Amino acid sequence: MPLEPDIAKEAVLKRSDNIEEGTPIVEGYDWNDGVNYNKLLESYTNTGFQATNLGLAIQEINKMLDCRQRPIELSEEDVYEKDEFVKRKYSCTIFLGYTSNLVSSGLRETLRFLVEHQMVDCVVTTAGGVEEDFIKCLAPTYVGSFELSGRNLRDRGINRIGNLLVPNDNYCKFEDWVMPLLDEMVEEQNSKGTVWSPSRIIHRLGERIDNPKSIYHWASKHKIPIFCPALTDGSLGDMMYFHSFRHPGLVVDILSDLRRLNTMAVKAKNSGMIIIGGGVIKHHVCNANLMRNGADFSVFINTASEFDGSDSGARPDEAISWGKIRKESTPVKVYAEASLVVPLIIGETFVKRYFNQKKGTS
Amino acid sequence: MPLEPDIAKEAVLKRSDNIEEGTPIVEGYDWNDGVNYNKLLESYTNTGFQATNLGLAIQEINKMLDCRQRPIELSEEDVYEKDEFVKRKYSCTIFLGYTSNLVSSGLRETLRFLVEHQMVDCVVTTAGGVEEDFIKCLAPTYVGSFELSGRNLRDRGINRIGNLLVPNDNYCKFEDWVMPLLDEMVEEQNSKGTVWSPSRIIHRLGERIDNPKSIYHWASKHKIPIFCPALTDGSLGDMMYFHSFRHPGLVVDILSDLRRLNTMAVKAKNSGMIIIGGGVIKHHVCNANLMRNGADFSVFINTASEFDGSDSGARPDEAISWGKIRKESTPVKVYAEASLVVPLIIGETFVKRYFNQKKGTS
Amino acid sequence: MPLEPDIAKEAVLKRSDNIEEGTPIVEGYDWNDGVNYNKLLESYTNTGFQATNLGLAIQEINKMLDCRQRPIELSEEDVYEKDEFVKRKYSCTIFLGYTSNLVSSGLRETLRFLVEHQMVDCVVTTAGGVEEDFIKCLAPTYVGSFELSGRNLRDRGINRIGNLLVPNDNYCKFEDWVMPLLDEMVEEQNSKGTVWSPSRIIHRLGERIDNPKSIYHWASKHKIPIFCPALTDGSLGDMMYFHSFRHPGLVVDILSDLRRLNTMAVKAKNSGMIIIGGGVIKHHVCNANLMRNGADFSVFINTASEFDGSDSGARPDEAISWGKIRKESTPVKVYAEASLVVPLIIGETFVKRYFNQKKGTS
Amino acid sequence: MPLEPDIAKEAVLKRSDNIEEGTPIVEGYDWNDGVNYNKLLESYTNTGFQATNLGLAIQEINKMLDCRQRPIELSEEDVYEKDEFVKRKYSCTIFLGYTSNLVSSGLRETLRFLVEHQMVDCVVTTAGGVEEDFIKCLAPTYVGSFELSGRNLRDRGINRIGNLLVPNDNYCKFEDWVMPLLDEMVEEQNSKGTVWSPSRIIHRLGERIDNPKSIYHWASKHKIPIFCPALTDGSLGDMMYFHSFRHPGLVVDILSDLRRLNTMAVKAKNSGMIIIGGGVIKHHVCNANLMRNGADFSVFINTASEFDGSDSGARPDEAISWGKIRKESTPVKVYAEASLVVPLIIGETFVKRYFNQKKGTS
Repeated sequence: MPLEPDIAKEAVLKRSDNIEEGTPIVEGYDWNDGVNYNKLLESYTNTGFQATNLGLAIQEINKMLDCRQRPIELSEEDVYEKDEFVKRKYSCTIFLGYTSNLVSSGLRETLRFLVEHQMVDCVVTTAGGVEEDFIKCLAPTYVGSFELSGRNLRDRGINRIGNLLVPNDNYCKFEDWVMPLLDEMVEEQNSKGTVWSPSRIIHRLGERIDNPKSIYHWASKHKIPIFCPALTDGSLGDMMYFHSFRHPGLVVDILSDLRRLNTMAVKAKNSGMIIIGGGVIKHHVCNANLMRNGADFSVFINTASEFDGSDSGARPDEAISWGKIRKESTPVKVYAEASLVVPLIIGETFVKRYFNQKKGTS
Repeated sequence: MPLEPDIAKEAVLKRSDNIEEGTPIVEGYDWNDGVNYNKLLESYTNTGFQATNLGLAIQEINKMLDCRQRPIELSEEDVYEKDEFVKRKYSCTIFLGYTSNLVSSGLRETLRFLVEHQMVDCVVTTAGGVEEDFIKCLAPTYVGSFELSGRNLRDRGINRIGNLLVPNDNYCKFEDWVMPLLDEMVEEQNSKGTVWSPSRIIHRLGERIDNPKSIYHWASKHKIPIFCPALTDGSLGDMMYFHSFRHPGLVVDILSDLRRLNTMAVKAKNSGMIIIGGGVIKHHVCNANLMRNGADFSVFINTASEFDGSDSGARPDEAISWGKIRKESTPVKVYAEASLVVPLIIGETFVKRYFNQKKGTS
Repeated sequence: MPLEPDIAKEAVLKRSDNIEEGTPIVEGYDWNDGVNYNKLLESYTNTGFQATNLGLAIQEINKMLDCRQRPIELSEEDVYEKDEFVKRKYSCTIFLGYTSNLVSSGLRETLRFLVEHQMVDCVVTTAGGVEEDFIKCLAPTYVGSFELSGRNLRDRGINRIGNLLVPNDNYCKFEDWVMPLLDEMVEEQNSKGTVWSPSRIIHRLGERIDNPKSIYHWASKHKIPIFCPALTDGSLGDMMYFHSFRHPGLVVDILSDLRRLNTMAVKAKNSGMIIIGGGVIKHHVCNANLMRNGADFSVFINTASEFDGSDSGARPDEAISWGKIRKESTPVKVYAEASLVVPLIIGETFVKRYFNQKKGTS
Repeated sequence: MPLEPDIAKEAVLKRSDNIEEGTPIVEGYDWNDGVNYNKLLESYTNTGFQATNLGLAIQEINKMLDCRQRPIELSEEDVYEKDEFVKRKYSCTIFLGYTSNLVSSGLRETLRFLVEHQMVDCVVTTAGGVEEDFIKCLAPTYVGSFELSGRNLRDRGINRIGNLLVPNDNYCKFEDWVMPLLDEMVEEQNSKGTVWSPSRIIHRLGERIDNPKSIYHWASKHKIPIFCPALTDGSLGDMMYFHSFRHPGLVVDILSDLRRLNTMAVKAKNSGMIIIGGGVIKHHVCNANLMRNGADFSVFINTASEFDGSDSGARPDEAISWGKIRKESTPVKVYAEASLVVPLIIGETFVKRYFNQKKGTS
């Protein structure tokens, strides 16, 4: 009878070194202790896989917030800065980036909370991320399904965004609302020489929407700048295009916005990035942080992976090679669809802190 | 001055039909109402994207549980069935499938809860899904990182599973524990003519582990069958392989297990499938349900997409074409990494129901 | 002995209707016929999964090209159009969109071929998609690995793009090259009142690079417009930002570009879209095609899936609901990383046609 | 006028170290040189992203084949080995793993070529990977679409696999063909004491199918073992289940197969793994190679990513930590849908070598 092969035994039963002391043991929440979501979420860090990353993202954001609460001394630059929007206000400047679809979804309420309570300092989004917020103030977006036929929907004039539905009438209402504002802007450009940029246009729209459900209502109120370099790429662009036949001449300058954005990064004593989704918003926030040799705190949340060489899928480590994230920092990427995890992450960080502070001061 | 082009205006400003009455409006949770995770999770259904699918998965599982609680009348077959494991016990037979990595992770505690409290009727898993549970009773699994070097880890005898670490000593301990049990099985085969199958082997191991943290401890106690057609594909297989040199002759029959599994499906008055992950466990649960012309309730949770033609990535609609899911049912797929969402889904369904019933009966 | 259960037999052995006549049978290439990549690629259509989609993409592009070759009659509008760039030239206007990483990769040569030989009419890309082409004229990009440490690379001043490496010196060379051109532009703005837009800036850079390896060299030569709404989001933006301290005042207007782009779509007798990658380039090409109530021919190539509700991952069917793709058309999405498939698709369509025509006319 | 901020200038214009000499420059194929797919594929290595990985996979397989061609000296073990199937035949033992869907697709012809010409030594697949090959000998599989309705298809008795269609009649024909063979096996078990295992069953079926289009026809002819630990998980299982009512008692033992498989790994002088897809086939090939302290050459091709902690998505580096891949080797993972790339990879390696050798010997 042959013996079991040595090579196999040695390979399979190789002895191991000790695990470093303090290494956490994997253990999930024990439901026998009852339904306690606070404790469940605490247990995520030691659950493994993306639950662990979610736990680390919560820690990273809490580090941002701890840093942001530290007292800040004014520099000369700060004193002379006349642009209220880019003025350094906190010890950590938080840059929030998100894609259009999140504003179409129910994450809009979570994003609005952050802006409403001045918990972020700078926002970068896409054209849809701007206009969908305003459009929702005019008419609702509905829950549909990923599998509805595009042909039938087009016949009915209903637009699909994943499993959401937006009646095309909503865009007609948006036209009615926005056209007079575009008139105003052209006139102001002509009369006062205003150079309109995406952030200035969004600020104006935010001033006019007058609806506390709107992210940009609050951004305007609190002078939080909203950057959107490709502002023409959506319904607002459609309207500007149509408008250009009636009142030609509006100029939408993106370079002055870049300077505003980069100024914020350069001035930031410390900086944090929370980037939900990929594409231009991810790159734009990171690129601004290159201007200060990298962000101190970084959280990426998206569904992309690195294998295609896209910036969307790149791990934070790629951003470190560019100087967009500091070498000594502890960036976190959560591989997840945002609607599932963003409320949990924001709830455990910004929201809990908000209510704790409110309690503390009352 | 040219006018805006008609074709553009008509395309962009096409009027829409009315949205069907009762269609839910997209709206996320308003954090101004405080941190209330129960309400947050309720709001997911109308949040869009995978949050909506998570909400629908909760509804689908609650339908399973409602159905399972209905009184059941015994058929002749039920009366004559001698195999306690496959005996029909409830008005809805719930099949739970999960992959190995979930047992390595902290989801093990959630899966154990379901088996501990007899809330599922049949489990299908992979070899790792079996042995990792036992091994965790012998020594812990640790939290590591996806980016640790495989070369360094091998030198240290530490195995990586995503961002988890398992010292190789754990497998040595497993060898010590399992070898005498394999001896026993060969002897029983030889003396009593026992035909060992994966489910019978797992049952035996479950009887012996004597640890309430183990999923299979409870499965053995409650006579819930655990199927694992490729039981040899992992550490247990390694041990059986080594063992076969010392005590050759053990036969591990997978056909008798298939008959047990299919019997459960055929007998089921109604059936529900909860399948977490892809590969053989997904197909095996679905294939069993083909034997009854399709499951009545189905929830898939995984990260795969359909484009590669894999069964792992297939939408429930593909399973309908095969008769594995009933045409008139409302199956749900959640595209998510399990560690993020499974606790939330199980918490909102099985666990809440468990505590409600406990309260009701106390 | 019990009989096999009827329900199982009926479900498993359900008889099938006849398959519609002419439905192709799945069959792959038989290598016994030798290594013949032309025949292999022909066999892809009947191979299944994404090979089939690759085959369909080839067919869809060939339809575009057939349409583009048809004689075109001039409309009044065409006659009066003074902007050479947006002038309708063919019976099918082809819009090509691609992301930055493709220009960093060796796909740049394939993209350049299309522009060099005037086989596309309009290009939309991102900032990186513009500058990386110019930078490659100044210094090379290297092949690296996805797993190189970002920290080490930053210390060495080497930037990583997936598994590519770009020494930071390349960006310094870009600065040297581009700064005088920016001076020129500011001066021209001040002296002649030029309103610079991304497409006009890229045209100017393309005129000056004087390198036949450059995509934009050829675009400038052939007056093919290159749109890039977020042109400031990258190295060129960094340079404009630095430049703005020395020679402030440059305005980069995105609205005039939108009008150019939309004009092309509105004027197009027929239109085709080839969109490689996601994000703003995908949306921007589609949105322009909404202006003509949808593209006639559409090919998407990317790695994203629809489950996250992103525009990047949306199937063509979603674009149909918006009127961005015609209802009666046959759009194709290939789920693949571009570097693998784009050369094959372009080789089988544009390139073969180019050489056939050359042969025909010689 | 303020100067550009130093921190920004320094971060953006950081000087770089020299790139190591010999580092390849990114450059794609120049189509101006004509349509030459051989040269195109050679250019992939320096194209970046997954094209580079495809190029590396070709190199890795060519290393396997070089190694396999080296003369082999017989060991004592080899001489005494009576099992023709597991006998060491070459200086490198090549393990090929693939999932079911690939056999349903047109990749079957490519896989068959490898087995037909004895270019691989051991195959691991899933139940569908076995039965679909036989079923295709009885009736064709058709090209459909991912978007056909499952409900309609079920009504028509047509099963969908991604964008492929299999009429259910095909499975009825399979029943007619396989039932007498199962009878035979039971009888042989009872009369001769044969212990049937998946590999032995597949061998028997392969002997009987008598069709040169079948992978397993050639496997049987050439005594190449086909392992499939979960053989009951599919149509063949359905048939065995039905059969068990008429002729009960067939035992399908997976442990003897494990010993065969591990023996091959232990005996291998060198070993190579080519694993297409994920799940049990990936783990099973790797686990066997652990028995020899790791494979020398490894190519993974699949669509999964590591973030979910699944073995399917794990990078080769994870397998190194387990001792399944040698530390000093150069494993390659191609992130791609197999139908797109497998023919290219096999064409550039096995097939070219096959025809070169044929030429050489003629």
